[in-house]
Amino acid sequence: MTAPLPTCLADYLPPDVPDIHDVALTARLQHLLDHKTKPLGSLGRIESLALRIGQILGTDTPVLDQPQMLVCAADHGIAAQGVSAFPSEVTWQMVENFLAGGAAVSVLARQHGLALTVVDCGVARDLPPREPGGPGPRLLVRKAAHGTADASQGPAMTDAQCIAALQHGMDVVRSLPGNALLLGEMGIGNTSAAALLLVRLCGVALADATGAGTGLDSQGVQRKQAVLQQALLANAQATTPLAALAALGGLEIATLTGAVLQAARERRVIVVDGFITSAAVLVAASLAPTVLQRCVFSHRSGERGHGHLLARWQVQPLLDLGLRLGEGSGAALAWPLLVSACALLREMASFESAGVATQGS
Amino acid sequence: MTAPLPTCLADYLPPDVPDIHDVALTARLQHLLDHKTKPLGSLGRIESLALRIGQILGTDTPVLDQPQMLVCAADHGIAAQGVSAFPSEVTWQMVENFLAGGAAVSVLARQHGLALTVVDCGVARDLPPREPGGPGPRLLVRKAAHGTADASQGPAMTDAQCIAALQHGMDVVRSLPGNALLLGEMGIGNTSAAALLLVRLCGVALADATGAGTGLDSQGVQRKQAVLQQALLANAQATTPLAALAALGGLEIATLTGAVLQAARERRVIVVDGFITSAAVLVAASLAPTVLQRCVFSHRSGERGHGHLLARWQVQPLLDLGLRLGEGSGAALAWPLLVSACALLREMASFESAGVATQGS
Repeated sequence: MTAPLPTCLADYLPPDVPDIHDVALTARLQHLLDHKTKPLGSLGRIESLALRIGQILGTDTPVLDQPQMLVCAADHGIAAQGVSAFPSEVTWQMVENFLAGGAAVSVLARQHGLALTVVDCGVARDLPPREPGGPGPRLLVRKAAHGTADASQGPAMTDAQCIAALQHGMDVVRSLPGNALLLGEMGIGNTSAAALLLVRLCGVALADATGAGTGLDSQGVQRKQAVLQQALLANAQATTPLAALAALGGLEIATLTGAVLQAARERRVIVVDGFITSAAVLVAASLAPTVLQRCVFSHRSGERGHGHLLARWQVQPLLDLGLRLGEGSGAALAWPLLVSACALLREMASFESAGVATQGS
Repeated sequence: MTAPLPTCLADYLPPDVPDIHDVALTARLQHLLDHKTKPLGSLGRIESLALRIGQILGTDTPVLDQPQMLVCAADHGIAAQGVSAFPSEVTWQMVENFLAGGAAVSVLARQHGLALTVVDCGVARDLPPREPGGPGPRLLVRKAAHGTADASQGPAMTDAQCIAALQHGMDVVRSLPGNALLLGEMGIGNTSAAALLLVRLCGVALADATGAGTGLDSQGVQRKQAVLQQALLANAQATTPLAALAALGGLEIATLTGAVLQAARERRVIVVDGFITSAAVLVAASLAPTVLQRCVFSHRSGERGHGHLLARWQVQPLLDLGLRLGEGSGAALAWPLLVSACALLREMASFESAGVATQGS
């Protein structure tokens, strides 16, 4: 029996995310990597990636199984203030594009055999769920609201909406197979929400958090910044991670936050995409810092603000290709590197097994 | 009927490598990329990669077909001077490891479906050719010599050996199917040869070209630098690209140079690995600058010297993961990004076809 959900964020208890630190396993993984037929450390950050995945999955023979690309979509009331270069209808239109297979994340998911689940977490338009039953993308409708309220005028979500979105994210992940979760998102206006969370939870200056999003010019960025300043003032009381999420975040960010917490609890490998999904990780890690132990950061986004989060966590992501599309496209592009790291760890010979002379011998 | 090979490098004529510049195709590719369902330019360097591959293959619907990983192996006389952290026997032992499937490049080639051809271009030990007839790696024996002479004492190769190695590279590529060639190499001592070519052909200071290779400590690097200085003095007369290749290079580098020229001539996509394969590209591009139009640079090696070549060509490689293994491992790790670039170009919907509103609409 499940306890009823609280209606007030102050009563909300995040799930327990145990520490995965295991000295013996880490030493075993490092020993294996150091004795593979290659100069010591010569696979660079692929070696630390293999070590990390081994630690997350708790094994020295990691196999990534049934990877799930989870794309959370929602609309943002603040978009009415002209903070995006694209109109809000693009959110549902892109959801349809994900499902039809024409979006970047659809193409990349097909290429890499990633099961694609799109979640309508709060798209303004009503969309029918799609369950093809085959390998194609599906749409789960888990609407906590028909878009957020305009954060420049007051809280984006009610406590109940935020709790529902968190719960949806946890429920969806619980229903997915596999041991790896790739994070994606869609929502016109959501770089605004992510920037607001970065300012409120990390103390980053608003100007450093505000980027061009889908393609604002410098005048547009200035206007966006003024609107975000208004949102910060209108929600000055929202200072805890969950209060900030509700007041300044988005329904897809809240759903992703729940998804991250649940995936971390289940020790899945969490592949973080760009700025928006990192904002969800920021909230999740504010509630349970051990979440970060399970995260692989796929790329450094071209969107201003992302670099601050990466610096805060002292992580160097795998790719740095000037991507700023979102959808999970960066996570999908980096995915084969995770598969490679595991394959190299499992399948490379050791100097001894291959009969190769070692350094200085 | 083929004309007989010259015996003197001064008489050697490199193959003609036509310019692939096509204004109309480039405009068509850029138009396609700009109208995909994504903010303009938001796939960053994946877009320029798609453009580049389209230009190389001469089509706006590029498909990478039967990719070939070509690993050229040879020994270096200069290794006797202690310029490497590993003994020369490791060259043939690693060739056996490539064939047995236990090396990094073997694992990655399996993962990505790259046909793996190892060429004995001049390994000191005699190795029997291996032609499994199935999908496994094969060994072609195309020895121009049983290793080079010690370049610190005089020319590493005779003119005839160098010409034979170039020709072997061209012949091997001519015999391979597909439209993409990934470059790999193995040869204890070959960062010395690559560094010498960098100094002689680009005027880079020796200290900036000399790195730790497979893992020298700082004392080892100093010793290596002294040996390389001696090699430059002993071969002061070798100033043209081919003379430098023969005097200071390696048999695997010469074979790779021929392979690059032939692949460029055939308009294959050439995926360059790290420092050694870039040194082969350096020689090839000195003979035929249009070679560079066909090259995709997979990664920035941790080996000192590689950055100078990348800066010279003003290229930003796809990955920057601190790799310094060689074998083609970086080219193989980056390979899925090329496949992604083509798939995105071919399969993503346009705003019009997907019914998605455009910027500012």
